[in-house]
Amino acid sequence: MLNPIQILGLGKSLPKKAVYSSQIDKLQNLKDGTTQKITGLEKRYFLDEDETADELLSKAIKEALTRAKLSVDDIDCIINATTTMQQAIPFNAAWTHKLLNTKRPMASFDINMTCLSVLRAFDIASRLFDSYKNILIVSCDTPFIALDWSNIRTAGIFADGATAMIVSSSNKGGIILSNFETHSSGYEYCQIKGGGSRFTPSNYNGDFKKLCYFEMDGKKLYKLSSQILPLFIEKSLASKNLSLDDIDWIVPHQASQSSLDHMIKILKLDKSNLIDIFKTHGNQVASSIPMALHTLLYEKDIKSGQKVMLVGTSAGIGLGLVIWQVP
Amino acid sequence: MLNPIQILGLGKSLPKKAVYSSQIDKLQNLKDGTTQKITGLEKRYFLDEDETADELLSKAIKEALTRAKLSVDDIDCIINATTTMQQAIPFNAAWTHKLLNTKRPMASFDINMTCLSVLRAFDIASRLFDSYKNILIVSCDTPFIALDWSNIRTAGIFADGATAMIVSSSNKGGIILSNFETHSSGYEYCQIKGGGSRFTPSNYNGDFKKLCYFEMDGKKLYKLSSQILPLFIEKSLASKNLSLDDIDWIVPHQASQSSLDHMIKILKLDKSNLIDIFKTHGNQVASSIPMALHTLLYEKDIKSGQKVMLVGTSAGIGLGLVIWQVP
Repeated sequence: MLNPIQILGLGKSLPKKAVYSSQIDKLQNLKDGTTQKITGLEKRYFLDEDETADELLSKAIKEALTRAKLSVDDIDCIINATTTMQQAIPFNAAWTHKLLNTKRPMASFDINMTCLSVLRAFDIASRLFDSYKNILIVSCDTPFIALDWSNIRTAGIFADGATAMIVSSSNKGGIILSNFETHSSGYEYCQIKGGGSRFTPSNYNGDFKKLCYFEMDGKKLYKLSSQILPLFIEKSLASKNLSLDDIDWIVPHQASQSSLDHMIKILKLDKSNLIDIFKTHGNQVASSIPMALHTLLYEKDIKSGQKVMLVGTSAGIGLGLVIWQVP
Repeated sequence: MLNPIQILGLGKSLPKKAVYSSQIDKLQNLKDGTTQKITGLEKRYFLDEDETADELLSKAIKEALTRAKLSVDDIDCIINATTTMQQAIPFNAAWTHKLLNTKRPMASFDINMTCLSVLRAFDIASRLFDSYKNILIVSCDTPFIALDWSNIRTAGIFADGATAMIVSSSNKGGIILSNFETHSSGYEYCQIKGGGSRFTPSNYNGDFKKLCYFEMDGKKLYKLSSQILPLFIEKSLASKNLSLDDIDWIVPHQASQSSLDHMIKILKLDKSNLIDIFKTHGNQVASSIPMALHTLLYEKDIKSGQKVMLVGTSAGIGLGLVIWQVP
């Protein structure tokens, strides 16, 4: 079974400000080289004080439209696939529609599966082309605001970024295989406890600011992911009689250097076919996979008919894998 | 075109505590009858202090499973279609998977279009049956925590509630028509500014608690909705050569008494075919439409082949309409 889908244009956007690991060392009174050694990151980008999420996402949308040779008038549906809300209400896609600065109403909604949101949205979009011709899938993740710098090991790997992808149906190529799983035994391993209806400034008596920081139990997360991800990949591929030898390119979620290294080692992957932009981009949450896909589409020698495996983990814990045959 | 979909079981859940408008009058030092007169509500339900959203949603899921004569093992995919997050990270469907208390991993993700989330999820689910046999669509809205009682006109219409719906493919019946629009010119008319990455306790210097209250500009919202909703309904029906005479039942979002009255008046609707549970349930956000659908499915004389119009507005501003032919 194949759900036809082509990418007409993919845009990415990085904040203006690059923050080098050496700068973090200085700020945190650490020995030079410490942050890079711990995180594997040379630099990451964060929104500057005079820069907004609106600008960040608008820039990505502009590139996607230019690459697709389309205008806002050609978009029929918006899926916002960002990990966190802009505000609790309304939904993120309404904000995105506002950014498009058009009076024309459009279908729009959010899909959320934390770091796998865009991957899940890509799969859902492939099933919506009987209703919409061109679908805009966006992500705009600005985790900086939720980082607790007393823990460099966690805070040091994240980065802000936005992406926009315009997809439509296709005569050839598309999704050969998609598989998603949620293992909620790891629900507590990655979380921001605040920002929802469970804990609010009205019902929480402690320091609410702390509750709005991202928490990660890296050890438990790594252990669970290592157990379930390789098996999940194998099982997913086998369901369509595929093996890793059939895959031409791998676009993994840029979760962390250790997660990427572990995946390469355990699956005996050829590094030259795997997109690894972690060192200079960090973990950009839901924007990570489309950001790496941008590198594949526009900087690598990708050919029609090749099979691309998009794969990763998310908070939840979620697992996701899509095999997309290049149109 | 018809996307086959049947509802195997629908469960609803109300908190234990009913709060009567007369009680609010006393609490707010208002003349007896004031709150009911302003809101049109006799009572609404709110989570009690010893009651959790976990319990509320679990109860609805239990009823859905019982009605569908299925067990948790029969569910292949969870779509959480709640308006607000439980916590900022992970996504709500991971929390739902945790509530199911199963070791078996499952596909799961969130869909958000505020008050129209379940309607949008119902439409999306109808396109996923090549991947999943039985899909559980849930909503669990607890707006009480975000209500500002200094404004009875807004706070007084909302209520807590949860629903769970198990859907699968069908040999007959299904979605004949679905249409969704976002008009972001009304983005600011219904909002909770806090709870997202735009405003956090780290970047906001004012009283963050106030930012986590629901704000509604009722007049502007009513004006915009009155302008666009009747036209949207007409246009949607006309796209499939349907008129209101073809519709057997109407299940509207229970937005407010005035919005329901206006819809009945402007569209010259037959009240006896319209499900109105507002007076005793209030606006239960995304849970409102499925809550009203529960009344139709299990308390009315609904027949195979009849056409049900599910319709409403959401923050955003969103519009949504689905015509579902009863299997």
